[in-house]
Amino acid sequence: MSVTAAKGFTAAGIAAGIKDNGNPDLALVVNNGPRQAAAGVFTSNRVKAAPVVWSEQVLKGGTASAVVLNSGGANACTGPLGFQDTHATAEKVAEVLDGHSAGEVAVASTGLIGIRLPMDKLLAGVEQAAAELSEHGGEKAAIAIKTTDSVHKTAVAQGDGWTVGGMAKGAGMLAPGLATMLVVLTTDADVPSAGLDTALRAATRTTFDRVDSDGCMSTNDTVLLLASGASGVVPEQDAFAEAVRTVCDDLARQLIGDAEGASKDIRIEVVNAASEDDAVEVGRSIARNNLLKCAIHGEDPNWGRVLSAIGTTSAAFEPDQLNVAINDVWVCKNGSVGEDRDLVDMRYREVRITADLAAGAESAVIWANDLTADYVHENSAYSS
Amino acid sequence: MSVTAAKGFTAAGIAAGIKDNGNPDLALVVNNGPRQAAAGVFTSNRVKAAPVVWSEQVLKGGTASAVVLNSGGANACTGPLGFQDTHATAEKVAEVLDGHSAGEVAVASTGLIGIRLPMDKLLAGVEQAAAELSEHGGEKAAIAIKTTDSVHKTAVAQGDGWTVGGMAKGAGMLAPGLATMLVVLTTDADVPSAGLDTALRAATRTTFDRVDSDGCMSTNDTVLLLASGASGVVPEQDAFAEAVRTVCDDLARQLIGDAEGASKDIRIEVVNAASEDDAVEVGRSIARNNLLKCAIHGEDPNWGRVLSAIGTTSAAFEPDQLNVAINDVWVCKNGSVGEDRDLVDMRYREVRITADLAAGAESAVIWANDLTADYVHENSAYSS
Repeated sequence: MSVTAAKGFTAAGIAAGIKDNGNPDLALVVNNGPRQAAAGVFTSNRVKAAPVVWSEQVLKGGTASAVVLNSGGANACTGPLGFQDTHATAEKVAEVLDGHSAGEVAVASTGLIGIRLPMDKLLAGVEQAAAELSEHGGEKAAIAIKTTDSVHKTAVAQGDGWTVGGMAKGAGMLAPGLATMLVVLTTDADVPSAGLDTALRAATRTTFDRVDSDGCMSTNDTVLLLASGASGVVPEQDAFAEAVRTVCDDLARQLIGDAEGASKDIRIEVVNAASEDDAVEVGRSIARNNLLKCAIHGEDPNWGRVLSAIGTTSAAFEPDQLNVAINDVWVCKNGSVGEDRDLVDMRYREVRITADLAAGAESAVIWANDLTADYVHENSAYSS
Repeated sequence: MSVTAAKGFTAAGIAAGIKDNGNPDLALVVNNGPRQAAAGVFTSNRVKAAPVVWSEQVLKGGTASAVVLNSGGANACTGPLGFQDTHATAEKVAEVLDGHSAGEVAVASTGLIGIRLPMDKLLAGVEQAAAELSEHGGEKAAIAIKTTDSVHKTAVAQGDGWTVGGMAKGAGMLAPGLATMLVVLTTDADVPSAGLDTALRAATRTTFDRVDSDGCMSTNDTVLLLASGASGVVPEQDAFAEAVRTVCDDLARQLIGDAEGASKDIRIEVVNAASEDDAVEVGRSIARNNLLKCAIHGEDPNWGRVLSAIGTTSAAFEPDQLNVAINDVWVCKNGSVGEDRDLVDMRYREVRITADLAAGAESAVIWANDLTADYVHENSAYSS
């Protein structure tokens, strides 16, 4: 259902020849209105790809009438010429779509850093995609933005007379702030850009910003939310925000489930923290500990590595009051040996780590992956 | 030459049976004076092993007459009973060595977290080690502290009539502040504890604190410097500090060269930074980027991953002024494509990354390793 689940949107996904292997690599999503409100959240990496710089400007106006996305090249670290390429892409979209302006066309790119895009193929692809725009094109668009993703990712939530749908790509370089992801969400609810922005920021803060496959922050992360108003329904902000969060959570979980080379999805819940910030800091520290990630891969409930990760943070806690459960077995109590580690069953893909800081009442959940030889293989051969 | 290169020291290394495989696992280093000055630097992890808590107290007095070290168990996260074990170990050393007090015996442990040490074997081992103390025992002591180290590590620097020597163990969980290491340095120079402390802190700051094999900070890191004064020479502080730095640098480089599963040693030099802190922050960010570490393993000069790592820091720089060289080929200039990446020869074990922030005149060097399938294999099977 993807980005065309909501009324007022058309989409297409085609093979423009940007990827050498001939797979689909260009997606176009068009908001046919009547409203064209939009909001966006972007990578916090200071080295931003050209399309991120461009789209941040577009979204400042609170309006986006279309989004063009390509895989096969990130257009990052490509200098002023790379930025011109992004600009030319937006101009081309405006040209082939009647009544659109380039300043309202968001651009997103994903793939290798440091190479220019083949603009002849890309611009011809925009024409082809425009010709294939359809109310049923959401699935094809989701397929066209895949890079090392093994499956395309879509999600939908239904409101009372309105819908939020979306697509995502991302399989590596996943880290908070945001993960290496392109996400486009659409809704036919009648929500102004300020309402979209509030809902989107709240949703990404507890979903995409809390998945961490490998601690590596991307240059291209982009999450867009477009509203057509085509349902004619003005939703309650809370209900709308919850629907956006549901779709983001679903897509974020799909990203972790498809992370490069991973054999385990690790749900890290930090409880009894003095503050939510403390809980997030501790969760991320655990999520990024390579030794722990290897242990989880080996189905080894190595709680000592959890404690050593917690110990590197500035969160409020006393070392001799820490408790850790792995798959609900409290293998560490009061900073020392707890229940028998042989009771921990780690055969399944999902592994749950609970870290109890015994310092307050706040909590947070971070999703991560294990570290595997397959991850090393995929990422040591990616650009060669 | 190790810890017995300097006059006034005896050492021993024996197999006490702490390790199941019968390998040497207990080392004893004794300072026979006439002076027994000492200084220590310990892990900044807030979850500290019992021997770290103990030895920090010992070193506060500025005196250490002996150091007992064991591999085969870290005695970390072992609660009050683990601390009693450390205390009993120091008492045993004081008992078997005439005229020593437990409060001047430093203890260091390394191995798995979260298991109690077999104290009967350990205490019997202390007796055996004391009986085997020798002016030529430094090598055996260095061998007895190995865990997953493939080789034992020693280094020596000669001053004008005095000597600094030392031993180190460490092969994984290497990260600044400090790496997972046990290091004992000895000198026969006549230096009071304040002079030792100044020299040791200055040396570790730019050596052990700047190696980072896997970003994981240990619970047990201990670096000790003991002075016997047996040479009768009072050295100039600068010359002494430089000798200590030389030995630390040599040992730190050996740690990186023996890191678990690594196939490359990566020398990351950040130049033209606005401050040394900026240079270190950027160097560590590059050192910890799993995607880059995989790329280096694959001999792929993937400078985009260097830029994306720099972009996550708070250092002063402009993205479009960053330059990156890999093995002296400036593959990234002004934040974009530079010299031909095919010119980069990455066949050798040492890889040099230079990151030019174009923001000042400060610099720093961080040493790291690549990320390999062997690292994953070693660390997913370590405790099982």
